Amino acid sequence: MKRIADSTIRRLSLYLRFLEEFEARGLSTISSDELAARGGTTSAQVRKDLSFFGSFGKRGLGYSVPELSSRLRKILGLEREWRVIIIGAGKIGAALAQYNGFAERGFRITAIYDNDPRKIGRDVDGLTIRALDCLPTDRESTEAEIAVIAVPASAAQATADLVVDAGIRAIMSFAPRRLTVPEEVSVKMINMAMELEGLSFALTNRGSA
Amino acid sequence: MKRIADSTIRRLSLYLRFLEEFEARGLSTISSDELAARGGTTSAQVRKDLSFFGSFGKRGLGYSVPELSSRLRKILGLEREWRVIIIGAGKIGAALAQYNGFAERGFRITAIYDNDPRKIGRDVDGLTIRALDCLPTDRESTEAEIAVIAVPASAAQATADLVVDAGIRAIMSFAPRRLTVPEEVSVKMINMAMELEGLSFALTNRGSA
Repeated sequence: MKRIADSTIRRLSLYLRFLEEFEARGLSTISSDELAARGGTTSAQVRKDLSFFGSFGKRGLGYSVPELSSRLRKILGLEREWRVIIIGAGKIGAALAQYNGFAERGFRITAIYDNDPRKIGRDVDGLTIRALDCLPTDRESTEAEIAVIAVPASAAQATADLVVDAGIRAIMSFAPRRLTVPEEVSVKMINMAMELEGLSFALTNRGSA
Repeated sequence: MKRIADSTIRRLSLYLRFLEEFEARGLSTISSDELAARGGTTSAQVRKDLSFFGSFGKRGLGYSVPELSSRLRKILGLEREWRVIIIGAGKIGAALAQYNGFAERGFRITAIYDNDPRKIGRDVDGLTIRALDCLPTDRESTEAEIAVIAVPASAAQATADLVVDAGIRAIMSFAPRRLTVPEEVSVKMINMAMELEGLSFALTNRGSA
């Protein structure tokens, strides 16, 4: 398969959400124009995005909603459940452990870890906070596949190293620090403070735009 | 000023973080090569990013750390404090209200709102959850500048409309829904479930890469 840009994958996720809304409303076909309008892009872009993954739809008839959504779920790996662990039981980590939005999409939080003795053993929404030292052994039995890193920036790289050593190949990190990982490991960064800085930039420079 | 790409602004935020680490270590100069290495980019890109905002550094001498970080803080609008409100006191909203990472960067959470009568009046880390209906009136006195939307997807657009009507021109949204806002309003989306789908895509398709 060709290397697919992250922006394409994001749009596929977005198209899938619209298709699911269409399904819920009982609609059976959708045009690339409709998908484009909902995704804030062009119908040419929709067709190009989908063309990476084979042929979809019939010219003039649009896409079959159940067929396209099923294909997108398969492409995105959403036909199965993924086991996710959270590392760092601070405010962000604990909130994520309790957040229902992940399980709805098939991402099941199976464990939460911290290295603070005052937190270890406490309960977060039915999960007991475990010692970070247990991760390598736990991993052998739980086969966690995705690690969410919600630790301070200064501990982020060491945490990523531990996660990678334990055999996990996908990381979502909230730490404002670029992580160095082997090529076969995928990393997604979520940096809320940097997004806020994008807004303060816009508010500050708008006058001179 | 030319239209600056979001990716450029993100890199400026990242450069600033490295400069602040350098400052904390008492270092006074940094080369574009060093900045590039830390930011995972090239020195040509660093020079290009900075060139949008005037001339920096001396050929062969690198950049003055305190001067460049001060200029970047000014460019990013970080020389002042920003007043941020959170709308939605669910798990994510409440966690954000308690998160210290924002205040450290000058983004002060001044209020949190919800429309659930069971939540209104409760305390979250020193802030009392206020009725969403109070937002327009509050806005006149508090002059909040940035709204964080942490409501369910189905309520996201109506919330954005309310925020815009109240005169707020910058939104960070956690709702998995594209928001339609007037051109002068800046929006940043944080979609954690979609980032996880990017990871499940990578894990699923890696074998065929």
